[in-house]
Amino acid sequence: MKADIIVLGGGPGGYLAAERAAAAGKSVVLIEKRALGGTCLNEGCIPSKAMLNSAKLYQHALNSKGFGVTADNVEIHQEQVIQRKNQVVGSLVAGVKAIMDANQVTVVSAMGYVEGKTSDGFIVRADDKTYVGEKLILACGSVPVVPGIPGLKEGIVSGYVMTNAEALSRTNLPEKLVVIGGGVIGLEMASYYAMVGVEVTIIEMLDKIAGPTEAEISEILLRAYKRKGIKFKLGCKVTGVTEQGVLYEQKGSEKIAEADAVLCAIGRRAYTENMGLENLGLEMNRSAVVTDEHLRTNVEGVYAVGDVNGKIMLAHTAYREAEVAVNHILGIEDTMDYSRIPSVIYTDPEVAGVGETEESAAAKGMKVRSISVSMNYSGRYLAEVERGDGICKLIVNLEDNTVVGVHMIGSYASEIICGAEMMIASKKPLAELQKLVFPHPTVGEVIREALFM
Amino acid sequence: MKADIIVLGGGPGGYLAAERAAAAGKSVVLIEKRALGGTCLNEGCIPSKAMLNSAKLYQHALNSKGFGVTADNVEIHQEQVIQRKNQVVGSLVAGVKAIMDANQVTVVSAMGYVEGKTSDGFIVRADDKTYVGEKLILACGSVPVVPGIPGLKEGIVSGYVMTNAEALSRTNLPEKLVVIGGGVIGLEMASYYAMVGVEVTIIEMLDKIAGPTEAEISEILLRAYKRKGIKFKLGCKVTGVTEQGVLYEQKGSEKIAEADAVLCAIGRRAYTENMGLENLGLEMNRSAVVTDEHLRTNVEGVYAVGDVNGKIMLAHTAYREAEVAVNHILGIEDTMDYSRIPSVIYTDPEVAGVGETEESAAAKGMKVRSISVSMNYSGRYLAEVERGDGICKLIVNLEDNTVVGVHMIGSYASEIICGAEMMIASKKPLAELQKLVFPHPTVGEVIREALFM
Repeated sequence: MKADIIVLGGGPGGYLAAERAAAAGKSVVLIEKRALGGTCLNEGCIPSKAMLNSAKLYQHALNSKGFGVTADNVEIHQEQVIQRKNQVVGSLVAGVKAIMDANQVTVVSAMGYVEGKTSDGFIVRADDKTYVGEKLILACGSVPVVPGIPGLKEGIVSGYVMTNAEALSRTNLPEKLVVIGGGVIGLEMASYYAMVGVEVTIIEMLDKIAGPTEAEISEILLRAYKRKGIKFKLGCKVTGVTEQGVLYEQKGSEKIAEADAVLCAIGRRAYTENMGLENLGLEMNRSAVVTDEHLRTNVEGVYAVGDVNGKIMLAHTAYREAEVAVNHILGIEDTMDYSRIPSVIYTDPEVAGVGETEESAAAKGMKVRSISVSMNYSGRYLAEVERGDGICKLIVNLEDNTVVGVHMIGSYASEIICGAEMMIASKKPLAELQKLVFPHPTVGEVIREALFM
Repeated sequence: MKADIIVLGGGPGGYLAAERAAAAGKSVVLIEKRALGGTCLNEGCIPSKAMLNSAKLYQHALNSKGFGVTADNVEIHQEQVIQRKNQVVGSLVAGVKAIMDANQVTVVSAMGYVEGKTSDGFIVRADDKTYVGEKLILACGSVPVVPGIPGLKEGIVSGYVMTNAEALSRTNLPEKLVVIGGGVIGLEMASYYAMVGVEVTIIEMLDKIAGPTEAEISEILLRAYKRKGIKFKLGCKVTGVTEQGVLYEQKGSEKIAEADAVLCAIGRRAYTENMGLENLGLEMNRSAVVTDEHLRTNVEGVYAVGDVNGKIMLAHTAYREAEVAVNHILGIEDTMDYSRIPSVIYTDPEVAGVGETEESAAAKGMKVRSISVSMNYSGRYLAEVERGDGICKLIVNLEDNTVVGVHMIGSYASEIICGAEMMIASKKPLAELQKLVFPHPTVGEVIREALFM
């Protein structure tokens, strides 16, 4: 079968590329070996948010005495949480399929293998059929990093060690969970399990949690998790996994964190194996495919969007990259801008940020001013949160008085941050931004407070 | 005592005017007869949001079975709800006082009476002292409209009929509540009382609820309230209030809606009585003070901000008006723009809108396209809401392809709408707005979906 475009991988980058290209009149074949929606929809963003929502409701039922609400025998039923999660995932996957059908995208449910390029185009085999595409969009996603720690791989095989996929589908709760890795995935899962009553310990090699998150916010987040009962072993290196728990090195001595279950959340790497990519002669950076600002690879006609290019492994980055790649194929002027990609941690409290931090600005030699405002300036925050210590930070470029970064920790941060991004994108000076009317009372109003400081 | 500026009224318009003017070096006297914070803080926005938050938590404890969470004996304790609300209000009022003190604003806790203007300035008496101000900012707020319906005023005197103030502080719950008026205040209070188990009937003269809210959204909201058990008598005129309930006329025949308590929420009008405003010779529109785009009245040196000018009775309008008025006094170029004031209804579901609707655009002769998208396009919405029917509507100006209105009904709408306002303010065409990266998964992403339709 011949097509204008073959897309390899049906996650956010892949399915959106297929949708946009098909909507513009291109014939598209989308090859996905598992379920449409990829990691994000099946074992990432969506399932974790569904589960965190159940945990939030459980906490509300348990701990609303201060707000005048009491209840007895509050229980969370893990099997039903997972069942509800599966329903949500199921209907979203069906939704993606419906969009593919509506746009006449040919969806092939099989592993694709790139045989190479001929004068006809790129040759991809899947399900014993051959597909020929004029252009090839790689959207193969990523897989969890599983380093060579003694006992780790064996633990995964035995089921004692989970990755995100297993952590998002187990129907029984362990008593003690050890999470290896204090990045976003580890924190969201640790937060879920802690909220539903599991004793959770996080072991993290760095001295801080949440990776590149703004430093002050990372500290507030750490305090909040500790109040929820999560234990932290920071600056500790995991040295082994046994049936009793996770071995780690703390200041030279080896210790053990006992566990009934272990979550390996060290990170993710681009997934580029066993699909014949070596037949294309692609320039690689470790396992990732190297791309430019149009998402082109070094091979003409081949693009790589989403986690597979290893740049910013977030679904919304993949969406935008998919559009930029398709626009390049369609001859529409567009380039990828990685400077304003928002990032969110969906725990309680929520964390969201976009643009520069003090650290990233300093690294670029920018002169900035940092404004930090307590969320308690917001009447809504004060009304809805007990003893909240959320903050909102603005990073202002002193050269032109524009906002170049916004970082928040507190309720609704995830939904407020896209407004912050627009504020940055507008490149208007503070004096102009001060004229924006923020609805009262909202938590988002703290941005307005900060604009006047 | 002499001051550069006398501010009459300590609500959002008044205290922010005082803060901004004092921060710019002006000497300011703020006269407030009751509590700082005005209606908004003491008997409006903030108390209602605190109470609605308790009701939301109560509903979460009661109705989360579909999310895997169960509880027995779920109770809401009205006295504690009110106590918590009072704490929140108390700390916010204290916060306003602290800001006044920090800016060296002289706060006078008394009723102010304007005696007139002399060559020294405007003369205001309060608490047996005389204050002389070079400029006068009126921020006297508004009071509930209580029309001459037989039995209504008597009901207020006896306590059988409440206005917002009483509805936000009663510690016992009625069995049956009738709300006169289906505008924002009536709906928020009806929603609270219905959520905590009171049988609520709303009587509204118009055939729709929520006043100027976008028509399709108003209908969805009505359906949602009906599902919660609220009864509606639309297109009905209230003809009397008795001890048994509220009499109303429906298609020519008189009926009664039984009630243990009645809430009068017909509307609000500018409060301009008994404070000597007649001594200034102000141009009035009924009870409201007429103002221009700098919030000037017809009398030089006198400004009117907030509800008292009767334009858009929302706290955030008052904030911005206060700044525009102070900027005019300070000689800083600034004008009031009423075209992009967001409005929010904080019930479940939330409603938020900003800019033009199809109706308002048609009235101005604008050619627009309306895009309506189901919130179920958002994975987060689908994950968090059962059988949700929220929508997001964009109003696009066909002349330049810019977004001129955004209207939403669904979770987080209140916090998403300020981003929508920035999108409108940017005046960028759709093709540019499509390049914005919305974090995934958020409910705000429905705006991005709509931008591509």
